[in-house]
Amino acid sequence: MDSWMEEAIVEAKKSLEQGGIPIGSVLVYRNRIIGRGHNQRVQKGSSILHGEMDALENAGRQPAAVYRECTLYTTLSPCPMCSGAILLYGIPRVVIGENETFRGSEELLKQYNVSQTVLQDPVCQALMHRFIQRNPGIWQEDIGV
Amino acid sequence: MDSWMEEAIVEAKKSLEQGGIPIGSVLVYRNRIIGRGHNQRVQKGSSILHGEMDALENAGRQPAAVYRECTLYTTLSPCPMCSGAILLYGIPRVVIGENETFRGSEELLKQYNVSQTVLQDPVCQALMHRFIQRNPGIWQEDIGV
Repeated sequence: MDSWMEEAIVEAKKSLEQGGIPIGSVLVYRNRIIGRGHNQRVQKGSSILHGEMDALENAGRQPAAVYRECTLYTTLSPCPMCSGAILLYGIPRVVIGENETFRGSEELLKQYNVSQTVLQDPVCQALMHRFIQRNPGIWQEDIGV
Repeated sequence: MDSWMEEAIVEAKKSLEQGGIPIGSVLVYRNRIIGRGHNQRVQKGSSILHGEMDALENAGRQPAAVYRECTLYTTLSPCPMCSGAILLYGIPRVVIGENETFRGSEELLKQYNVSQTVLQDPVCQALMHRFIQRNPGIWQEDIGV
C-alpha cells in the first residue's frame, strides 16, 4: 500500500487510542508531509476538525502555489466540508482509504477535476466498522445525521 | 438592518482591530446566538478558521437537530469550505452581508435548497474594500489565490 496512506492510518489509530473517531489524513507536498492530523471531535470537542481539516490546519498558512502541488491522503471519503476545503485551496489530488463506510462529496470533487483514487483498504474499513458499532451516536454527530 | 448581522459585523470589526481579516459570523438557534467568531488567519495562523468556521467551532458539538434550525449570519459570501460545512450540518438558512467583494459557493448552496439572503450591506463592503486595498496578499491567501 501507498506509504503516505500508512501515515494517514497512523493518525487514525492515534485518534482511536485517544478515544476519538479513527480518521486520519496527511497533506503531502513534493514527497514530504507538510501537515498531518486526525479527527478531533471527541478530543477537542471540535465540530470542524475532521481528519482532513486538522491536517490542513497543522500545515499552517501556505501560499496557493503549494496547495496546487499537494496530494491529500485521507483514510475516509471526504465530507462536504473537507471537500470544500480541497476546492478552496485547489488541491488537485486526493487518495482515499475507503468510501464504503461513508461516501462524501466525490461527485463535487469530480466536477472540479480533482483526481481521486479510492483504495478500499481493509484496515481503514475495519477501524471505522468497529468504531461505529461501539459509538454510533458520535459517528452520526460527525456527519451531521 | 437585521440585528444578528450587526453582531456578525461586531465580530468582523473585532478581527480588524486585531490586525486580521474583517469577516465575522454568528450562528443563531431559536433567537439566540450559540456560536460567534471571526476569521483567524492572521491571529492564529489558521488556514481553516474563516469567520463561519470559527463561529461553528465556538458553538461546540451540537446534535443534528440543532443545526437544522439554525441560521448562519456571515458578513461575506461563504467560500467552498464554509459552504461545505453548511451542507455537512444541514444548516437551512444563510444571511450574507455582501457578495460583491467575493462570491462564494452560492450556486452549490442553492442546489441543496439552502435559503440565502444577500444584504449588500455597505458597512460589510467597506470593511473588506479597505482591508484588501491595504493587504492584498493576505486576502488572496485566504481565498486560495
